[in-house]
Amino acid sequence: MSILVVGSVAFDTIATPSGRVENILGGAATYFALAASYFTEVRVVAVVGDDFTPEHKQVFQAHNIDTRGIEHAKGNTFRWGGQYLENLNEAKTDFTELNVFQTFDPRIPQEYEDTKFLFLANIQPTLQSNVRKQMDGVRLTGADTMNFWINGAREQLLETLKLVSVLLINDAEVKLLAAEKNLPRAALKVLAMGPQALVVKHGEYGATIFFREGAFGIGSHPFRAPALPIEEVKDPTGAGDSFAGGFMGYIASQDELNREVLKRALFYGGVMGSFAVEEFGTERLQKLTREEIDARFQVFRELSHLE
Amino acid sequence: MSILVVGSVAFDTIATPSGRVENILGGAATYFALAASYFTEVRVVAVVGDDFTPEHKQVFQAHNIDTRGIEHAKGNTFRWGGQYLENLNEAKTDFTELNVFQTFDPRIPQEYEDTKFLFLANIQPTLQSNVRKQMDGVRLTGADTMNFWINGAREQLLETLKLVSVLLINDAEVKLLAAEKNLPRAALKVLAMGPQALVVKHGEYGATIFFREGAFGIGSHPFRAPALPIEEVKDPTGAGDSFAGGFMGYIASQDELNREVLKRALFYGGVMGSFAVEEFGTERLQKLTREEIDARFQVFRELSHLE
Repeated sequence: MSILVVGSVAFDTIATPSGRVENILGGAATYFALAASYFTEVRVVAVVGDDFTPEHKQVFQAHNIDTRGIEHAKGNTFRWGGQYLENLNEAKTDFTELNVFQTFDPRIPQEYEDTKFLFLANIQPTLQSNVRKQMDGVRLTGADTMNFWINGAREQLLETLKLVSVLLINDAEVKLLAAEKNLPRAALKVLAMGPQALVVKHGEYGATIFFREGAFGIGSHPFRAPALPIEEVKDPTGAGDSFAGGFMGYIASQDELNREVLKRALFYGGVMGSFAVEEFGTERLQKLTREEIDARFQVFRELSHLE
Repeated sequence: MSILVVGSVAFDTIATPSGRVENILGGAATYFALAASYFTEVRVVAVVGDDFTPEHKQVFQAHNIDTRGIEHAKGNTFRWGGQYLENLNEAKTDFTELNVFQTFDPRIPQEYEDTKFLFLANIQPTLQSNVRKQMDGVRLTGADTMNFWINGAREQLLETLKLVSVLLINDAEVKLLAAEKNLPRAALKVLAMGPQALVVKHGEYGATIFFREGAFGIGSHPFRAPALPIEEVKDPTGAGDSFAGGFMGYIASQDELNREVLKRALFYGGVMGSFAVEEFGTERLQKLTREEIDARFQVFRELSHLE
């Protein structure tokens, strides 16, 4: 079934030890949509400016991504510049130009109203809530957020979390949100805020999913998908959004919604994140095959599989 | 088959958010020996002082650990004091009194000469080499080291590594030893220094074993054993040595020496490390059962096991 992502489309200027690129197509919704497109039909709600050309739109359409929800506004598209020269695990932001994104007020096209799977990428929490409230028939809602909103819009974020089925954030964000340094205890606190499940991304160590007691199955045992150590990380930008795209895209492609599906989805998330970082921007995500994806899924599975 | 550990026996004074203990039995050889004792017969070479009482020796003997290699010297036993108040992942050392350990020159008793499995805990690298050279019939040698020797006794350490089958260190130590920030590339460099396999401990994220091409089996695919997130870490002291005890102890208990054995050993290492941190000092390691160990092995195995 189709999945809708609401989030940013951006032009990024990125420097890493492997090189430097300027104004390449990026943004959370872009990475998510490309990653999810290998699993299911994807719809996008975002805003772009005059500098977003038909060639840029073609990147989406080449993957059968429905772009009718991409609004064109006067001005420039959101631009971000950052570098990973000291540390590949953390971006140092050089500049942020919100441009048309500053007044982004996501509107869901009528054609999208039957969407069953929704992903709220990292945008202002009240906008996330507003989108969710426009989508009555949604079966599962995933969401991302960041330190900026956890610190600066906590009350609004707590309202959003009541409407979210699965929250996908990293270790530091879980601990900050819960004000608790121990990860399993922090996870319990976050689950008490609303989500049925919490996916904690550990970067090169993979990801863990924590379940509310009884959600999607029996018990509350966490599950971990280990990632493969990557020899050549060219550009970490978009790894988290690509993870979310693989995770949510796989779920949306399945008939059932249970723990086994969520566990496999966690592996597919890691797989898509690991591909994303192999080239600058969305380059690697644009030219994958489902066979390559499933081959890496098997490698990841065997990475921790005992006979 | 029996395994010999050479390393420190110590009295530790430890402060953590869960409390404070003074002069409790510790040291790498103690944690290792107790952890390994659940899998096979263990022999110890270490030095202790006048403050090491028959009650202390009884802790070893209650687990059938052969203490004939524990040398009694005049003076006090090695003492260490540290705290984990800010960060449970890193000890802040308050004091180190080497005492009788300062002149430790490990001698292998004649009764130990037939030992087939050897673990060189974290001591001065030249002492590690000297021990290994006294043990002609050894089938597999494991070793630990630390930043202090990587920085301060690099040449001696490189000599030791030529004599070691499996090196067990953490992420930061691998990167420092290899002078390389990317873990898989750093691992390759360390394997080129001598070891057949490298176990990299990731703390709460588990551990990865990297193999030299063709060592213990076909190919060079790494393998990862994820750890269970622990809700209550009371005292992290000795987690790494307990990991090594579970890993090496399980290997020594098996007839075969191949990749499947090493993979299961990696899980048993994680299991023993996770038990060690549940109580202060060696308290938890002293009162385990093999049933509890195998039950947690199953939990760890299922943590990342897809149907």
